[in-house]
Amino acid sequence: MMTLTVYADSTPNPYKVTILLESLGLDYDLVHLDFSKNEQKTPEFLKINPNGKVPVLVDDGFTVIESGAILMHLAEKHGRFLPKDVQKKSETLQWLMWQMAGLGPVFGQLLVFAVAFGNEMPRATKRYQAEVLRLLSVLNSGLEGKDWVAAGEHTNADMAIWPWVRMTERAQIPLVDMPNLKRWYERLGQMDAYITGVEILGDKPEETRMKGFFGATVGVGS
Amino acid sequence: MMTLTVYADSTPNPYKVTILLESLGLDYDLVHLDFSKNEQKTPEFLKINPNGKVPVLVDDGFTVIESGAILMHLAEKHGRFLPKDVQKKSETLQWLMWQMAGLGPVFGQLLVFAVAFGNEMPRATKRYQAEVLRLLSVLNSGLEGKDWVAAGEHTNADMAIWPWVRMTERAQIPLVDMPNLKRWYERLGQMDAYITGVEILGDKPEETRMKGFFGATVGVGS
Repeated sequence: MMTLTVYADSTPNPYKVTILLESLGLDYDLVHLDFSKNEQKTPEFLKINPNGKVPVLVDDGFTVIESGAILMHLAEKHGRFLPKDVQKKSETLQWLMWQMAGLGPVFGQLLVFAVAFGNEMPRATKRYQAEVLRLLSVLNSGLEGKDWVAAGEHTNADMAIWPWVRMTERAQIPLVDMPNLKRWYERLGQMDAYITGVEILGDKPEETRMKGFFGATVGVGS
Repeated sequence: MMTLTVYADSTPNPYKVTILLESLGLDYDLVHLDFSKNEQKTPEFLKINPNGKVPVLVDDGFTVIESGAILMHLAEKHGRFLPKDVQKKSETLQWLMWQMAGLGPVFGQLLVFAVAFGNEMPRATKRYQAEVLRLLSVLNSGLEGKDWVAAGEHTNADMAIWPWVRMTERAQIPLVDMPNLKRWYERLGQMDAYITGVEILGDKPEETRMKGFFGATVGVGS
């Protein structure tokens, strides 16, 4: 019997995987690790992922780390949410890489400096705020006249990016002057796989500490 | 006639692409943009890559952004440096994603706080120093008993990671207690494609400002 096990916490990168699994209609087991208790750094978990991060997918005994690699593995295996046409496939992967190397790490650092460091280094916080807004603006332009991020169809690039755009809502960063992004974000947020993919993991209460802070300092309206 | 054009600066992400192109023995045109003159942000270049970053590959009129997506595009197109076996291909992509989402962004932030911000926020600098060393240590463990990062063969994961490990040498971060990483790094550095891939782009003189700084503060021996 084939089994799928996902190791996850209530954070954007694991949401990508549950959204894809829900979109594919697959059954899977969930192992919830709590980052705030350092459960990603136990000796047992480091045997599964020596890099000490979630998500991890174990697909019938084969371990896949890194959310971007998990999305590609599942999409290629099931032949869905990744176009076969060479240029459309590349366009999908380009936006996936843009998220993995850009929006995700930069937004992650913003949360570190704003929340974990309590904005005690405002120059650093501002640097990441500006870069998050720049990246969101690039995405907004990319979505001009389009329903999906890449390839004119629903791909794993949408699933990789959406959970990080969702963090703007959690952090009360208003998507002012980004009508394409707002429209795309809200439409996907009404799809069953996106709703269930988030609900099954829940949210971290710590994020509420961001509220107000960003609304007061980003300064791009409401 | 097919043409390949690479937009690049003298930095690790573009080296990945020139190393792969040299490994494939392909001819290509090089457009050198100087980041210190903001040449990645001109209106002309933003038409090619709205994200304003290098490398960019234009493959016979088809534009590919993000170094990780360029490596995958070229490797899949030419059927080399990316295994066809499902698990080996995934293992290669996992390490590529690990570099794109982890080692690259974290090392990049370390350079920002150490060099651009002149270490005026030492808590931030230390945070990235510690994370770079943790990631290098994970890589060193992954290379135990192995000649290549992934799949038991030379893949684009080696080409993605090597230029960032090279930055440890530029920054004088000694690879103490990382014998597997040191052996792999030095062996690849003697291969023609790696030598030429770097030489064709050159090095940024600004990096010399890191010297001494890291040797004095990392504190992991020599």
